[in-house]
Amino acid sequence: MATAPKNCKVILPQSIATRLLEEVQQTLQAIGNGKPRLAAFLANDDPAAVKYAEWSQKTCEENGFEFDLRRVGKEDLEEELRVANEDNKVDGIIIYYPIWPDNIAQDNYIKETVALEKDVEGLCFRHLSNMYHNARYLDPPTNLRKSILPCTPLGILKILEHVHIYNPILAEGNRLYGKTITVINRSEVIGRPLAALLANDGANVFSVDVTGTQLYTRGQGIKNHRHQVEDKKDYGLKEVLPVSDVIISGVPVESYKVPTELIRDGAVCINFSAYRNFDGPAVKEKASIYIPSVGKVTVACLLRNLVRLVANRPTDSPSSTEARKEAFTEG
Amino acid sequence: MATAPKNCKVILPQSIATRLLEEVQQTLQAIGNGKPRLAAFLANDDPAAVKYAEWSQKTCEENGFEFDLRRVGKEDLEEELRVANEDNKVDGIIIYYPIWPDNIAQDNYIKETVALEKDVEGLCFRHLSNMYHNARYLDPPTNLRKSILPCTPLGILKILEHVHIYNPILAEGNRLYGKTITVINRSEVIGRPLAALLANDGANVFSVDVTGTQLYTRGQGIKNHRHQVEDKKDYGLKEVLPVSDVIISGVPVESYKVPTELIRDGAVCINFSAYRNFDGPAVKEKASIYIPSVGKVTVACLLRNLVRLVANRPTDSPSSTEARKEAFTEG
Repeated sequence: MATAPKNCKVILPQSIATRLLEEVQQTLQAIGNGKPRLAAFLANDDPAAVKYAEWSQKTCEENGFEFDLRRVGKEDLEEELRVANEDNKVDGIIIYYPIWPDNIAQDNYIKETVALEKDVEGLCFRHLSNMYHNARYLDPPTNLRKSILPCTPLGILKILEHVHIYNPILAEGNRLYGKTITVINRSEVIGRPLAALLANDGANVFSVDVTGTQLYTRGQGIKNHRHQVEDKKDYGLKEVLPVSDVIISGVPVESYKVPTELIRDGAVCINFSAYRNFDGPAVKEKASIYIPSVGKVTVACLLRNLVRLVANRPTDSPSSTEARKEAFTEG
Repeated sequence: MATAPKNCKVILPQSIATRLLEEVQQTLQAIGNGKPRLAAFLANDDPAAVKYAEWSQKTCEENGFEFDLRRVGKEDLEEELRVANEDNKVDGIIIYYPIWPDNIAQDNYIKETVALEKDVEGLCFRHLSNMYHNARYLDPPTNLRKSILPCTPLGILKILEHVHIYNPILAEGNRLYGKTITVINRSEVIGRPLAALLANDGANVFSVDVTGTQLYTRGQGIKNHRHQVEDKKDYGLKEVLPVSDVIISGVPVESYKVPTELIRDGAVCINFSAYRNFDGPAVKEKASIYIPSVGKVTVACLLRNLVRLVANRPTDSPSSTEARKEAFTEG
């Protein structure tokens, strides 16, 4: 193990977001489809949801997208989504969750209501299922329509590429080989998909939440098999943090802090909670790289997904088809 | 209001289940398809799940169905379901929930993994969405493939038909018109679908759970519109039970009891919890009809759904097509 670096590098998400948004602009020009329209459904007064709505509005408008905010009652949401699904002027749909904070299952029902071809968040079952199975296309064997990855997990992958945790020397699908990563949070929207994506790229991933620890690995082969999951009932943070090259935390509780003394010298620490899960001054004494928040990268990935949805649509023009096929080939 | 009946009629579910199973046998003969096979996935040791598995096994075997129990690890469940989805020898699939008691969202993911045409529990999004929108077919406008209703809500509808709460004098879709019904439980699997189904048939339904009370109504028209939902924040059991013709309770807590003093004289009381939600001796002093449990009716509906799945499959024989079209036209 390395000794503690004298200067921890703190990377703010803005720099990574800016690069992603430039790429989004280039792709948008190439496929030549004017201003894509995002229909954004706000059906609650949750402060985090309202903030995410404001943030996505600002980023859309700054980047030449139409942002169409629709404030609706919870009970009208399903019908309004059906209208937007059928509306040719809507290119993508986002919903600011939670709608029913006491009823995850009802929120799930709403996620399935969004048409697959407008699901900019990648939360429909088909997108999630493709992700868990390493399937990148919605239309095999034609392979013109790419599957959508959920924005926050995708954003964290982009961050790990940016900080060179993904090793470009290795073959695609193997670029995290040899890395040990801990993800603290196993929600269905972020933590579990993230652990699976990282394992599919070759990492050993400890997934930790209040119900226990699991180890996600790729199993045999490269990008051929689904990740494997084992319960590690005897493992806690004390066992997994000291051996982790990367620690990614998203505990939605203000008081929660990752125990600094367990972080290995030189680790990469990423926080995706709305609260600061790392003790700022102390973590910088241990980590080699610290990314205190990811929100702006998440929103950039939202626009990236929106352009991909546009690129997924059938077209009559052969040159446009080629541009669409090329859209974001790397990710 | 009527005075308290001297003799509350207690109806055990067996009598209703027997009649449903006879109907299932007749339909099975008519479509002539041998022994349908139910693949039953048990991936936990939950005592209620194990009991439901034993019960469905017994009923399958007594009624000439193949019951194919598959004990699998949680982490293998998704892949095993994909195998069963593709297996021509499997006619229907049931999963004994919960798989991840701490993670409703992951259980929901599993529900979507079951192929629509094998979803004997009616828990895939497409079946649920059809139910909420009063859409009875999966293939409009051809209308040969019927949508599946979740077993417990369907069973409770069958019970309400049996005890003549559904008024056969009225037009279909209007047979609960004028009835007030309270449903205590608003789970996504039973309580919410049940409230919607009852409202779609014309009842005013108070849906009560720990997060508050809602009123489900049909809105305008008969079977043309989706039910409507209003929050009734000021309403509790004190407001809704005394005006309810029917009280249906499914609180999964041993200590919970519906307050007997609030039950109106002559009400119909139905318990679908694994625990007794009504105080047995006392409720009989108030209710006109008391149904202490519904489990056997639920299992009968499971077989009914399995036969419907078989009937939904394409066939080359015209006479068989006719029998399939006729299968369970009433329900």
